[in-house]
Amino acid sequence: MILHGYWRSGAAYRVRIALGLKGLAYDQVNHDLRTGAQAAAGYTALNTQHLVPTLVADDTVLTQSSAILEWLEETHPAPPLLPADATARAIVRAMVAIIGADTHPLHNLRVLKALASDLNADPIAVQRWAARWIGDGFAALEPLIAQYGNGFAYADTPTLADCFLVPQLYSAERFSLDLTPYPRLVAAGEKARALPAFAAAHPSRQPDADQA
Amino acid sequence: MILHGYWRSGAAYRVRIALGLKGLAYDQVNHDLRTGAQAAAGYTALNTQHLVPTLVADDTVLTQSSAILEWLEETHPAPPLLPADATARAIVRAMVAIIGADTHPLHNLRVLKALASDLNADPIAVQRWAARWIGDGFAALEPLIAQYGNGFAYADTPTLADCFLVPQLYSAERFSLDLTPYPRLVAAGEKARALPAFAAAHPSRQPDADQA
Repeated sequence: MILHGYWRSGAAYRVRIALGLKGLAYDQVNHDLRTGAQAAAGYTALNTQHLVPTLVADDTVLTQSSAILEWLEETHPAPPLLPADATARAIVRAMVAIIGADTHPLHNLRVLKALASDLNADPIAVQRWAARWIGDGFAALEPLIAQYGNGFAYADTPTLADCFLVPQLYSAERFSLDLTPYPRLVAAGEKARALPAFAAAHPSRQPDADQA
Repeated sequence: MILHGYWRSGAAYRVRIALGLKGLAYDQVNHDLRTGAQAAAGYTALNTQHLVPTLVADDTVLTQSSAILEWLEETHPAPPLLPADATARAIVRAMVAIIGADTHPLHNLRVLKALASDLNADPIAVQRWAARWIGDGFAALEPLIAQYGNGFAYADTPTLADCFLVPQLYSAERFSLDLTPYPRLVAAGEKARALPAFAAAHPSRQPDADQA
């Protein structure tokens, strides 16, 4: 499999984690989102949004991290990243959507660029915008993790919720969000980050990462 | 089942469509998002984001439209709203995410309010912001629907993709988006809208709708 990504993309980071948890080998092709490399014609043929990630598996071209993770779960079910019970699955997927729909899309690179170009937002306003929505998402997740988590975000093994949570924590740190109101969420994130699959997926460990 | 919603919420509209396609009866409890009614303590206990929709089924409280629709598919599989094949499912879910993650969250009511309050965006800039992201999402969907659709957005029966597309078309009309660049998408939306489950779910037909 080939993962088209970018070291700092939160959505690509999710897929790297899930591939690692499933024990699947893959090659990386990275596109520098800062220079617009993902808009090249060759990549647009794979991804009509010219966003990352795209996962290419044999002749199958898969886009959108949430769809890719569900596909991995269906085609490579061990170890499971969703619980067996339908209600439990719905709670994990709600956690996923709080981050994947209502938090991350509001502050990814294309949106932050548009805030500056379309609305003349200055860098401080852009930083506050990102932190606001991450804070809102974490405030919604904290009571859910307190209710349902048991070490990890949901119960006592990693799920799709952790695949989304850890990259969102990385973004929160980049935007200097105060994490003290979210102790259960932070604890779940720390537990997940300690696992090899999560550690290997960290942006700083990717081949296209900026040198420190 | 009880659906907590709001007539103009695109996310609640998706759930109404799916419940209708599955032939499931439900009662509605509606919360006027314009007045902040969804922030009342009783509702926050059901939905930590104080967003709609929430679906309450017996003792099960489900949030986030994408999670609710996956739960409906798992617990009430007929008629299916996802294809049987894993790759096909991933394509439908990618269509869902283009709308559910990368389009609608950028222009829902709470975000449009924040553009005005946090970034001093005037009403024209807010309208352009919404139209920009809906246009981007539709531009990504159009070639996918051209490739995979056969009447409906994916193949020849309604799927989760149509449950997301039709409410997004309703939003596009509200924000006066020019739809001429997306003929396949519009044709798929029109075909879906003609079905009774889609028609009954339309905002104007809900009990809390403003009178025309």
